[in-house]
Amino acid sequence: MSTDATETAPTAREWQLAARPNGWPQPSDFRLVERELGDLSPGEVRVRNTYISVDPYMRGRMDDVKSYTPPFQLDEAMTGGAVGEVVASRSDNLSVGDTVLHFYGWRDTVQADAAQFQKTPDIPGVPESVFLHVLGMTGLTAYYGLVDMAEIKPGDAVFISGAAGAVGTVAGQIARLKGASRVIGSAGSAEKVELLTSKYGFDAAFNYKDGDIVGQLRAAAPDGIDVYFDNVGGEHLEAAISAFNLGGRAAICGMISMYNSTEPPAAPRNLAQLIGKGLTLRGFVISRNMERFDAFAAEAGEWLSNGQLRYDETVVEGVDRAAEAFLDMLGGANVGKMLVRVG
Amino acid sequence: MSTDATETAPTAREWQLAARPNGWPQPSDFRLVERELGDLSPGEVRVRNTYISVDPYMRGRMDDVKSYTPPFQLDEAMTGGAVGEVVASRSDNLSVGDTVLHFYGWRDTVQADAAQFQKTPDIPGVPESVFLHVLGMTGLTAYYGLVDMAEIKPGDAVFISGAAGAVGTVAGQIARLKGASRVIGSAGSAEKVELLTSKYGFDAAFNYKDGDIVGQLRAAAPDGIDVYFDNVGGEHLEAAISAFNLGGRAAICGMISMYNSTEPPAAPRNLAQLIGKGLTLRGFVISRNMERFDAFAAEAGEWLSNGQLRYDETVVEGVDRAAEAFLDMLGGANVGKMLVRVG
Repeated sequence: MSTDATETAPTAREWQLAARPNGWPQPSDFRLVERELGDLSPGEVRVRNTYISVDPYMRGRMDDVKSYTPPFQLDEAMTGGAVGEVVASRSDNLSVGDTVLHFYGWRDTVQADAAQFQKTPDIPGVPESVFLHVLGMTGLTAYYGLVDMAEIKPGDAVFISGAAGAVGTVAGQIARLKGASRVIGSAGSAEKVELLTSKYGFDAAFNYKDGDIVGQLRAAAPDGIDVYFDNVGGEHLEAAISAFNLGGRAAICGMISMYNSTEPPAAPRNLAQLIGKGLTLRGFVISRNMERFDAFAAEAGEWLSNGQLRYDETVVEGVDRAAEAFLDMLGGANVGKMLVRVG
Repeated sequence: MSTDATETAPTAREWQLAARPNGWPQPSDFRLVERELGDLSPGEVRVRNTYISVDPYMRGRMDDVKSYTPPFQLDEAMTGGAVGEVVASRSDNLSVGDTVLHFYGWRDTVQADAAQFQKTPDIPGVPESVFLHVLGMTGLTAYYGLVDMAEIKPGDAVFISGAAGAVGTVAGQIARLKGASRVIGSAGSAEKVELLTSKYGFDAAFNYKDGDIVGQLRAAAPDGIDVYFDNVGGEHLEAAISAFNLGGRAAICGMISMYNSTEPPAAPRNLAQLIGKGLTLRGFVISRNMERFDAFAAEAGEWLSNGQLRYDETVVEGVDRAAEAFLDMLGGANVGKMLVRVG
């Protein structure tokens, strides 16, 4: 019991879902509220977030549809990946000053049972934000898709759609590190296309907003492709099926082209090629495949320490701009991982 | 050199491709011709066919499109599976009276190098026609699709489209023999639906011509499906994706609904479910997977001898009716394997 009557009660600013979008989300679908936090209960910690993550899959959680992650609830705080610092603790397992990874994003401060927070390992020269992308779920997504789903082999020609996004930039580099003969990416602006070849080691890249995805992919992969990492769906998937060599394998990670569509998408019109070419399409959700995390982290931690794995971050400052950052990310404004620094 | 001037020179009646169809093939796309066969060269045999096979994949060969089997050539004899009897031999490897399996269908008589013909094994109580279906490529297709592509496990609920066809009736029985918890089939008439449950041991079946495939499948598989054997594509594939449980696997064997379509197919519109449900779609062509034939034949030969594998044949009499039999088969007139008895 504090005897200082002037002490301010701790508060949190957190984003709530104000309305379910129809098609593209609007700023008015989100609401930032401030609320008082109670005292810590035994076993709890209070964490001040340093970075919070905004990701494409969150668009799906805005709809009231049963999926692999539960929908956000109207008028309740939204959640997502975040990294923060313990600022108060009533747990023996975490101390003030610890850096932790957790799922209470979309806010500046949270308090909850210490078991909900995972201390991050110390890797020399690696900033804490990477646990939200290249050394976290993002990196694991790229790794699992290529290694486990598409069963990448040395010599494969690999195509990655949405390649300048957080998952795509990691996937392109892992493909190269795993011995791909050729790595091709698509992205949505000339700047991103340039970045793929200049910074991330892609052999070829094209701007899908220029149209004729089939033609552009054929030009970039004259000998066809063996592996496709799909972040986009729709025409991209159709183009990949058309460019596949015999025995081609697609890891279906995302179909961002469809998330905001209010019309049922047209099917790839060439699915019958699955038969003649002996193709495999495998969809996956990384949260159900966490058993591969340790193998991934061991390999990726080494690549990162060796400087073999590069990344970009697009950082928006201030928890009050999280909704804006999310909308910008859906519109393709980010290069690499979109993050909000809470400050 | 025969001294008998009245001896008739041996002839063959064979079907040629007269025109490439646009959409559904017409009788006028085929032409039956008679031609003289020359004398046998050393190493050759002459075979009189007893049964010839007409199959859905032959529709694809009528188009001038590169695929897993080369297109039929205009004004040349068509080919396909057949079983016949050696009637003349200049080879040490085959004798007059041998029953042989080969690929010179669509005709009554053929002569060629003995290496093109394979002697059939003697299995007690098994007629020669089964080498063209349940104990041949048809049976292997069903087996390979379920076992190797869909990786069927005991307890799986299995859905087979076009289930009353040659591959489908075998697939349903193999699914049961491999421990499926529930086997569901679709077919194109009330008679076929009845046959699936009464003769082939399907737990449930429905007539897809009644419409609402999604609804009919959900009613037949209230707990969802784990494996889908696709012979039809289009709306059937969409319904299967919708009914799949987590981790569902589809073996894509055929898309007969699309073969005669001149419009791009509209379905499946729900491919994004591949991601959330972690689904796998694998297309295959059996001719590239013949290494599994011996394992299949050992298991299936035993099932057949034990009476655990039943089959139907729809037999059309006379080589002159082969085109008619083929067109009827495309239209769904057959029950089980469609064959032409040369007589």
